[in-house]
Amino acid sequence: MKILKFALLGVGRIGKIHAANIALNPKCSIECVYDIDSNAANKITSLYGGTVALSPKEAISNPSVDIVYICTSTPTHTKYILSAAKAGKAIFCEKPIDLDINRVNKCKKELEKYNIPIHIGFNRRFDPSHLSANERKNKGEIGKLEQIIITSRDPSGPTAAYLKVSGGMFRDMTIHDFDLACFILQNDPIVEIYATGDRLFSAEAKEANDIDTAMIIMKSESGVLCHINNSRHASYGYDQRVELFGNKGMLISNNQTPTSVTSYSNGNTSSKDHILNFFIERYEIAYKNQLENFVNCINNKKPTTVNFEDGRKALIIANAAYDSFENKKTVKINYS
Amino acid sequence: MKILKFALLGVGRIGKIHAANIALNPKCSIECVYDIDSNAANKITSLYGGTVALSPKEAISNPSVDIVYICTSTPTHTKYILSAAKAGKAIFCEKPIDLDINRVNKCKKELEKYNIPIHIGFNRRFDPSHLSANERKNKGEIGKLEQIIITSRDPSGPTAAYLKVSGGMFRDMTIHDFDLACFILQNDPIVEIYATGDRLFSAEAKEANDIDTAMIIMKSESGVLCHINNSRHASYGYDQRVELFGNKGMLISNNQTPTSVTSYSNGNTSSKDHILNFFIERYEIAYKNQLENFVNCINNKKPTTVNFEDGRKALIIANAAYDSFENKKTVKINYS
Amino acid sequence: MKILKFALLGVGRIGKIHAANIALNPKCSIECVYDIDSNAANKITSLYGGTVALSPKEAISNPSVDIVYICTSTPTHTKYILSAAKAGKAIFCEKPIDLDINRVNKCKKELEKYNIPIHIGFNRRFDPSHLSANERKNKGEIGKLEQIIITSRDPSGPTAAYLKVSGGMFRDMTIHDFDLACFILQNDPIVEIYATGDRLFSAEAKEANDIDTAMIIMKSESGVLCHINNSRHASYGYDQRVELFGNKGMLISNNQTPTSVTSYSNGNTSSKDHILNFFIERYEIAYKNQLENFVNCINNKKPTTVNFEDGRKALIIANAAYDSFENKKTVKINYS
Amino acid sequence: MKILKFALLGVGRIGKIHAANIALNPKCSIECVYDIDSNAANKITSLYGGTVALSPKEAISNPSVDIVYICTSTPTHTKYILSAAKAGKAIFCEKPIDLDINRVNKCKKELEKYNIPIHIGFNRRFDPSHLSANERKNKGEIGKLEQIIITSRDPSGPTAAYLKVSGGMFRDMTIHDFDLACFILQNDPIVEIYATGDRLFSAEAKEANDIDTAMIIMKSESGVLCHINNSRHASYGYDQRVELFGNKGMLISNNQTPTSVTSYSNGNTSSKDHILNFFIERYEIAYKNQLENFVNCINNKKPTTVNFEDGRKALIIANAAYDSFENKKTVKINYS
Repeated sequence: MKILKFALLGVGRIGKIHAANIALNPKCSIECVYDIDSNAANKITSLYGGTVALSPKEAISNPSVDIVYICTSTPTHTKYILSAAKAGKAIFCEKPIDLDINRVNKCKKELEKYNIPIHIGFNRRFDPSHLSANERKNKGEIGKLEQIIITSRDPSGPTAAYLKVSGGMFRDMTIHDFDLACFILQNDPIVEIYATGDRLFSAEAKEANDIDTAMIIMKSESGVLCHINNSRHASYGYDQRVELFGNKGMLISNNQTPTSVTSYSNGNTSSKDHILNFFIERYEIAYKNQLENFVNCINNKKPTTVNFEDGRKALIIANAAYDSFENKKTVKINYS
Repeated sequence: MKILKFALLGVGRIGKIHAANIALNPKCSIECVYDIDSNAANKITSLYGGTVALSPKEAISNPSVDIVYICTSTPTHTKYILSAAKAGKAIFCEKPIDLDINRVNKCKKELEKYNIPIHIGFNRRFDPSHLSANERKNKGEIGKLEQIIITSRDPSGPTAAYLKVSGGMFRDMTIHDFDLACFILQNDPIVEIYATGDRLFSAEAKEANDIDTAMIIMKSESGVLCHINNSRHASYGYDQRVELFGNKGMLISNNQTPTSVTSYSNGNTSSKDHILNFFIERYEIAYKNQLENFVNCINNKKPTTVNFEDGRKALIIANAAYDSFENKKTVKINYS
Repeated sequence: MKILKFALLGVGRIGKIHAANIALNPKCSIECVYDIDSNAANKITSLYGGTVALSPKEAISNPSVDIVYICTSTPTHTKYILSAAKAGKAIFCEKPIDLDINRVNKCKKELEKYNIPIHIGFNRRFDPSHLSANERKNKGEIGKLEQIIITSRDPSGPTAAYLKVSGGMFRDMTIHDFDLACFILQNDPIVEIYATGDRLFSAEAKEANDIDTAMIIMKSESGVLCHINNSRHASYGYDQRVELFGNKGMLISNNQTPTSVTSYSNGNTSSKDHILNFFIERYEIAYKNQLENFVNCINNKKPTTVNFEDGRKALIIANAAYDSFENKKTVKINYS
Repeated sequence: MKILKFALLGVGRIGKIHAANIALNPKCSIECVYDIDSNAANKITSLYGGTVALSPKEAISNPSVDIVYICTSTPTHTKYILSAAKAGKAIFCEKPIDLDINRVNKCKKELEKYNIPIHIGFNRRFDPSHLSANERKNKGEIGKLEQIIITSRDPSGPTAAYLKVSGGMFRDMTIHDFDLACFILQNDPIVEIYATGDRLFSAEAKEANDIDTAMIIMKSESGVLCHINNSRHASYGYDQRVELFGNKGMLISNNQTPTSVTSYSNGNTSSKDHILNFFIERYEIAYKNQLENFVNCINNKKPTTVNFEDGRKALIIANAAYDSFENKKTVKINYS
């Protein structure tokens, strides 16, 4: 088996996670690393091997490289996607592709010239519990799907600086939930959305003119109703639940704890261990499985499982959410 | 202690429950029973004592009667309320007061002439678990309330005949959830609503031009977001959950089972006993506690805890839900 | 339906519970009450009706009385059982029948002269959860029973004064678990026992030369192994669990909480409401169901479901437990 | 950091697990592999590198080797331990050290001549949940420990062939629970034991004159009571629970499931995913953590955390269990 060689662009918080997983996967190796902070790049290569590239171009054009991993800041994504495509490399790009749908559409058109596999970083599709619930639903365990309830609350919000460039809660945070809903609904597209929200607690959100709390209802073509609720702070940890309600039953993918210990005392009964605190812990296995899935698609020359269009759709839904939020009405979603 | 004497109007499904609870409560006794079906009335008096009244008027005007319990069909409610008020009797009236807000408003105006205690039958406020969650929230356990999630799914829907006179899902079924949300929010009124729904499975709902599945988002004056989801069929039983999310924690009032037995076999792990199937089982204690609460208010000359205005507000919200559903937009709620 | 009339002997802690249940049951009424403390008797009759009897004899010989309820101190049980039997009354007697097996055997012999229904107060058999687990086992849900694990821990121990006359932990507290094991095993008698224990914390137990912690293993004729563990203090409440392990599955009757509320905060995850604190709360329904069961047996002229022999067997096992504890060996149980 | 080099002796079921973990751990590499079946050894080296050794001697004497991993059949353990000790290699040896306490004692005496780190393969000490419960107990969360309940049931039993050489259930299976109890009790040694069991279902156990079901009670020097129950078949999977009861609370290390999905249908409520089926899945992380722990002790020149004496003690307790079982009495444990 050929070991796939990776060029990593960007090794910030999320890039580091991908770097560690690539290093651990016996089918992969890190060939080169680029980051605007060369110290950060150095740190990664000293841990996991590979060389430091002095520019994205150098990394992408490295002839040994099979796959370009794009974990840089969002506005650079489409540029690197197209560079990598031109260089004939397979691509992994973190979400969102871009905050501007016009740039995404342009990128899409350009990409069509190249027959390049690309995988967008919607990690939650690869969480064993969400995945298991979805597969059991697909096998008919709950009959016909009628309702989806996604609870998605972060333990704490990002910095004001980040919020100013994040594109807003719907494009930055809820976009994961939009994609998860699309994944669950498969060939039954979301056709309308209602979104609302408020700024209930966050000074940073206020500074960035963003919200910190949201509720959404979407409807699919076949009539499935989907509710999403979001908060930028959950005192008890990273709250990630998915409920699938069908005419023959219900499946819930619940929160997870690091151990199976429960405690009993004068003050509590059957209290579980704390909820896994944030995405690095909660979706640790999801990240690993996502890489494995992508690598297998490349090796077996199969289409990627989360493609450019999935990334584009999630952004279109997020944009429609803003339209609904601002105009206080149901918005029809137009994917064209 | 004086035993309070009750006139029961209507002893159908819900009237029977009230009759049994009145008979069991040592502070109460059944004085007389009226039903359009005199056999039904006879059955109740033979079980629990009291005499059969030949007309509502006879029952209401009976001088021994302290309290008139109105469990007849919805269109008769306001008429009997006013008759009882004129006769100087305390009143319990099943929800909804009426399907027509104009009649409710007229009734309200008339009622103001009499200083009569009236209690509307929103039983869920008296469920020990919903109540406990709400009280713990009031005591500050979860800090400032930010989100409410109410899951409310019936095990199976009513007959087509009933659906035709029910006033529609929002006025018949969701009205309980609207009231529960108002109860939780207390002095923080719901100011806007978005409601949607669909007819996903029910032939009866189709015949009645009603929906069978709904999702709603409401916002309170202070910004609390509240989601309600409804279904007319839940294969696993009567699904009644309330989630209160605050800035310091979360409280969930979960479903209940008749026993605390869990089973383990080749096919399942830690499977609980079945969920209590419908409102008679699930809210058995709530009904008893509601009666107790009402009777104590009467005996102690305190205001009733669920009053006419609560019934009127829930109907106003239900009407706004229909407005939103039909016009696909956020609707401001006008309580005047 | 004839209302059964009760003579209550002894209205201390447990007698009061029975009095309230008799008063609530529409098939029963309290005819007379005797207690060495006539104020206590007066209190009961003023609450629930009936007259105060000046002596046990007066109560038992009252010609209106159908059933004698014996809730006096243990040493008086056999005397009142025989008096009631001679008077031709049905009998309910609290556990244990007596602490001395010779007196129990003598009483048994005497009783055989009268064909009197007698029911011994092993309330746990009537707990809906224990009962449900047992019935599901009987229906074959877990195949052939192989192991029983009974966890039975009181929230706090009795007074030193009580401990001195209690007959010791095995005869006073564990006797309930012995009976529960017999009930579960039905026609498969317990044939041997090993018991051990220690005094780990209780000054009162020390004063009474008793233990406060125990562990037991018993074996039935067919080879079923049964473990019991006891403690006189459980900081988290009254711990009452029964685990039935068979070759096709396992059923656990778990602890119970007053509400179905769970809480989540920085310090806990999915913490349930507190465990019901002691037998009055935990077995509230069991006591009501036990009375109902007894009354139905009387009314339908069927044999009682917990008879004198059940009470005798539990004491024999408790005695064998002491033999084992003192001699540190397996003891064969001789029921003759 | 120096990479530690391993000689693997025996790559059957358990040796394969260790081989994979050594290969995955970046601080370790496989230097050579010996197995009586050279094909098995070849398979491992082709997967993970290293050379095939033609004899245990060749593997042990390989000068590159730092650590000898003994996963061969039990009767060969002491021989290889001593060879490795003479060769100055650190040692990991699977449980049990040997079935014969005299050989273990002799081996101990011999070993004392060499100052060699040795780690015995009691993997359960490294399970994150058991470990967490124990650490929380050590930190005082449940006050003074009073009771331990270990439930340990295999999903299915071994072959008749294996059972004949296993040394019997107590030495083969329960030995893990004995060690876990010692681990939890730390410096409070187990001083007496009562053990019983039966052959309730297993033809293989019958053929091997072994039991398939057991219950045990042990007492520590300070009076802590410890119950173990075992079965060779649990229809619902590998049942591994540890309950720690103290005077201020209780901690339970519960069973684990591969996902956090729960299902609801007409037939079940809140049914969890299946229990992890057997030790390879259930203790997957424990095996990895055990290796990590051992390697860190070697690298930091610290004493091993599960030493020869721990292995010897567990065998002494198992032997005492047989003594108790055969003589139906409490047996004092003599560790000398």
